[in-house]
Amino acid sequence: MAQKLTLKKIAQELKVSISTVSKALRDSHEISVETRTKIQEYAKQYNFKPNNIALSLKNQKTKKIGVIIPEIVHHFFATVISGVERVANEKGYQVIICLSGESFDKEVVNMDMLANGSIDGFVMSLSKETMERQDFHHLREVTNQGMPIVMFDRVADDIACDKIIIDDVEAANKATDFLLRKNCRNLGLISTPDYVNVGRLRTQGFKEALMKRGFEVDDQAILKVEDIENCGDKIKAFLTDGKYDGLLAVNELFAVTASKILQGMGKEIPKDVAIVAFTDGMLSKYASPTLTTIGQKGEEMGGLAAAKLIQKLESDHQEDETYETVIVKTSLIERESTP
Amino acid sequence: MAQKLTLKKIAQELKVSISTVSKALRDSHEISVETRTKIQEYAKQYNFKPNNIALSLKNQKTKKIGVIIPEIVHHFFATVISGVERVANEKGYQVIICLSGESFDKEVVNMDMLANGSIDGFVMSLSKETMERQDFHHLREVTNQGMPIVMFDRVADDIACDKIIIDDVEAANKATDFLLRKNCRNLGLISTPDYVNVGRLRTQGFKEALMKRGFEVDDQAILKVEDIENCGDKIKAFLTDGKYDGLLAVNELFAVTASKILQGMGKEIPKDVAIVAFTDGMLSKYASPTLTTIGQKGEEMGGLAAAKLIQKLESDHQEDETYETVIVKTSLIERESTP
Repeated sequence: MAQKLTLKKIAQELKVSISTVSKALRDSHEISVETRTKIQEYAKQYNFKPNNIALSLKNQKTKKIGVIIPEIVHHFFATVISGVERVANEKGYQVIICLSGESFDKEVVNMDMLANGSIDGFVMSLSKETMERQDFHHLREVTNQGMPIVMFDRVADDIACDKIIIDDVEAANKATDFLLRKNCRNLGLISTPDYVNVGRLRTQGFKEALMKRGFEVDDQAILKVEDIENCGDKIKAFLTDGKYDGLLAVNELFAVTASKILQGMGKEIPKDVAIVAFTDGMLSKYASPTLTTIGQKGEEMGGLAAAKLIQKLESDHQEDETYETVIVKTSLIERESTP
Repeated sequence: MAQKLTLKKIAQELKVSISTVSKALRDSHEISVETRTKIQEYAKQYNFKPNNIALSLKNQKTKKIGVIIPEIVHHFFATVISGVERVANEKGYQVIICLSGESFDKEVVNMDMLANGSIDGFVMSLSKETMERQDFHHLREVTNQGMPIVMFDRVADDIACDKIIIDDVEAANKATDFLLRKNCRNLGLISTPDYVNVGRLRTQGFKEALMKRGFEVDDQAILKVEDIENCGDKIKAFLTDGKYDGLLAVNELFAVTASKILQGMGKEIPKDVAIVAFTDGMLSKYASPTLTTIGQKGEEMGGLAAAKLIQKLESDHQEDETYETVIVKTSLIERESTP
């Protein structure tokens, strides 16, 4: 039985990366003429067409939405999916989900697969690796051909498309301010590396709130954790000198990990250390003590993203090139981890 | 632009259910001749073909696996997906996920969509509504046409396909026995309705363990919770007389909810009440106290399901009609919620 040629197979065969194949087939000048020619000839020989978007757009609509997200273990992405499903189903659309697993290559391959006539448009949040590389050629390719994308949470600033975000700076500002008003004076932040935009923006909001109130910003008081699943050791080392009386964490896993470590050190929460998290998921609700958190409104974001996409898909003015960035309001949900 | 006719649209148009349309188009005798004719003529008029599986099988392989699961908010299904992704990617397959949202209709519609040439085979776990109705015509249709399905966790006994399950009876038996060995004498069980096979089997295992050791089984000591998301009130009422010194819960959400309610009643865990859960997810690891639990090996189950499916897809003997049920060994993970 004939096996379909894929970007990945071409990459393996010619010993280049998937993104090189992807770019070469789009005749990108980032790739040397020699490599481009080699890849294009190989593709031609096997009659491989990288992207039939234009073709599918000329034909009938699929009434399907493709969702590409980094992973589903975290509650936030799961709630976004619920919102997408709710609105999509109301409007007669089906939802197909693919995971990038935080991998750039998987994101490229999944987008390429879905864009080939399986769906009408994308709702997506970028993989960590894509943010790190700042390589968005696969998104540009899709939008250039007229297939709409709505990005949420982890967005690329320089891609022209609709975006659904929270104001991360303002939210972190609000959370930091809240800790200061509760008389915390030695604040620590547990964040992600700066290439993850939400981590960078929340770090910025944290710093701004401190400066606005006349506190010094100590870079030693900001921990940037790369490996979310194995954050324990890093957080333990960060907390070991016991100097913080208030902590802000950019997700609930960091917050609950810090809470457990502090309790293990004999600290009482919130008496000795107050904690504010981001994401109102299972962990925030069921941890002991329960966590005060910034609710990210994942369900609402997913619903808005789907509504926006469907509006674009069903608009008579497909050529309309105005894009909107919707900022969803966050709320601080007070629970037991703050006084 | 032409809109594609779907099962759902035909159902709406003719004011019948989606499964009636689905069955009528397969000429099922469950549907009256009159209705069948009406639906078939409508479909013919619009040139609607319900299922092009046979067609797609004759053509090339897609190298894609379709995964249909009830939801992704719970950790178990998220870990299964990780396992499917791992093995599928190793073997050069892509994974497409659709959610049934515990709805029979959505399961039928999603299967129909994916089976239409988008994928080579399915990995799936049934929706609660499908289990309740015991209506598996959509699965039978797919397998009859030669497209393989591997089911996991929530399986249909009378569908001939490969299955990956845990021995739920044995696992509940082991957990109950463990509580009895820890000197608990008044055991309660928090389970799901019996139509969910895992709930029914775990209830059976609980009862068997009690009887084997000469304890009476009191049906009042078994709570069957329908609405998982809003289980709090029911569990509170169940625990209010304070008679249990040991609890088994069929998922970690029930367990952590019970733990919080008991602690709110002034009980100490595990001193006053010992608790054992199912699923080794975030909640079990991060609850206070952490939960002793039966690890369901979701990652392993997903990996096995994908491996089994790909093996079938790549076998030279596509007509081979032997099916296997793989029973994945569970393990009891001891944590703070038991003495």
